[in-house]
Amino acid sequence: MPLMSHSDSNPVRLPDAEPVPPATEFAFSADERGAVYRTIFERRDMRHFSGGTVAPDVMRRLLTAAHHAPSVGFMQPWRFIRVSHLSLRQQLHALVEQERVLTAQALGEREDAFMRLKVEGLLDAAELWVVALADGREKHIFGRRTLPHMDLASAACAIQNLWLAARAEGLGVGWVSLFDPVAVAALLQMPAGAEPIALLCIGPVHAFYEAPMLQQERWAKRQPLASLVFENGWGEPSAWFEPAVGPDKACALPQQKPQV
Amino acid sequence: MPLMSHSDSNPVRLPDAEPVPPATEFAFSADERGAVYRTIFERRDMRHFSGGTVAPDVMRRLLTAAHHAPSVGFMQPWRFIRVSHLSLRQQLHALVEQERVLTAQALGEREDAFMRLKVEGLLDAAELWVVALADGREKHIFGRRTLPHMDLASAACAIQNLWLAARAEGLGVGWVSLFDPVAVAALLQMPAGAEPIALLCIGPVHAFYEAPMLQQERWAKRQPLASLVFENGWGEPSAWFEPAVGPDKACALPQQKPQV
Repeated sequence: MPLMSHSDSNPVRLPDAEPVPPATEFAFSADERGAVYRTIFERRDMRHFSGGTVAPDVMRRLLTAAHHAPSVGFMQPWRFIRVSHLSLRQQLHALVEQERVLTAQALGEREDAFMRLKVEGLLDAAELWVVALADGREKHIFGRRTLPHMDLASAACAIQNLWLAARAEGLGVGWVSLFDPVAVAALLQMPAGAEPIALLCIGPVHAFYEAPMLQQERWAKRQPLASLVFENGWGEPSAWFEPAVGPDKACALPQQKPQV
Repeated sequence: MPLMSHSDSNPVRLPDAEPVPPATEFAFSADERGAVYRTIFERRDMRHFSGGTVAPDVMRRLLTAAHHAPSVGFMQPWRFIRVSHLSLRQQLHALVEQERVLTAQALGEREDAFMRLKVEGLLDAAELWVVALADGREKHIFGRRTLPHMDLASAACAIQNLWLAARAEGLGVGWVSLFDPVAVAALLQMPAGAEPIALLCIGPVHAFYEAPMLQQERWAKRQPLASLVFENGWGEPSAWFEPAVGPDKACALPQQKPQV
């Protein structure tokens, strides 16, 4: 597999950089493990697209990957709506634009910085899909009696599967959540109880961001992983996670050296 | 890469079964794409573990994969708490057991069937981790003004990254959500505003389930993908997704033939 030179694309020693013994007999090959980590580290939340198309076969693979996500009590709460009518896409774009302005105002002192960001690619992406939680979810109690929002967690896992598969296929994905869910539900004639959770822009891109776009634009930066890991109680440092050496280093593992 | 004979492990024609042209110039190699799909299709929500240990290096790779998930406004809401004290693990197990009984009662006519299922491996897995949403999330407005639960969606993407990386490493993961979040938060001294969302059992397994355990146990079965996909409006069938040919077939794409 190709070697990455950018630190954010390869924050750990990948399994095939130096041979790492498989953790168990069920481990995939070093090349396969490397491909999985590469996909995870090079996936980006894309807002810039280059038009084009996505072949139906590719789209079916992406949705099949999504449908093989875990779901609480195997409830499979996800529904996927393709937006192929231009007028409907334009209406959704108008709703996002409304919410973009309202979000900017709510941000106060960061309003101007936010308004300078490109936060969606609804009119540029080859494909626009709406992901929603199905109606009738209240009958699913397994794993949700005390945590009803596990249905959203399941659908998010489905979107992450799609996102990773798309990256491996060379396609960008952007998850836009700047919208009024009531308005989007009405626009798509969703039944009572169904809830839109994502507008997914999917398609070819000019290039994948080298690092998360919001980091490149200095909106936020990746936190050191060690600051997010505790042991046996909140705030108790874990001996397994040493302090990070800098904001771009996700952990203190040695970086893989780029090879020329 | 190995060829899978079980339909649920390979519901689509993988990119390397027959050469499929890359969708874009940024597509990974056919072998890499195959590894990503293999991981997605062979990942399982595990409840049976074989004890053992997980090496700290492996655990750091899994957490680094989680930390490279997308997050709304790049807020990185996830926190990870390792449970290394046996007494704490036992207390968490007791909370899950309480909720298991309450869930069974809430299920009514399915109470007995539920009580026969193995729904958690808290005492058997090599590692037990609690995943929580951080406190102070209310200051993050980007992408959350109308959809505040996008923080949970982000953390679910992080868990899915960890889950897929673990499968490639040959390790099982089970997401247990059978618990009272207030009691778990208190047990781990979480600050006000932080919320536990997952007890993750992680570790070696005797074998990965051939199909989702809840399907094997006839609790639920996978829905045909075509029934979950619409176009331009709820309930409107999509021409790209033909009716499925059976409950185990995620879509109508040709199955890869097992080779001997």
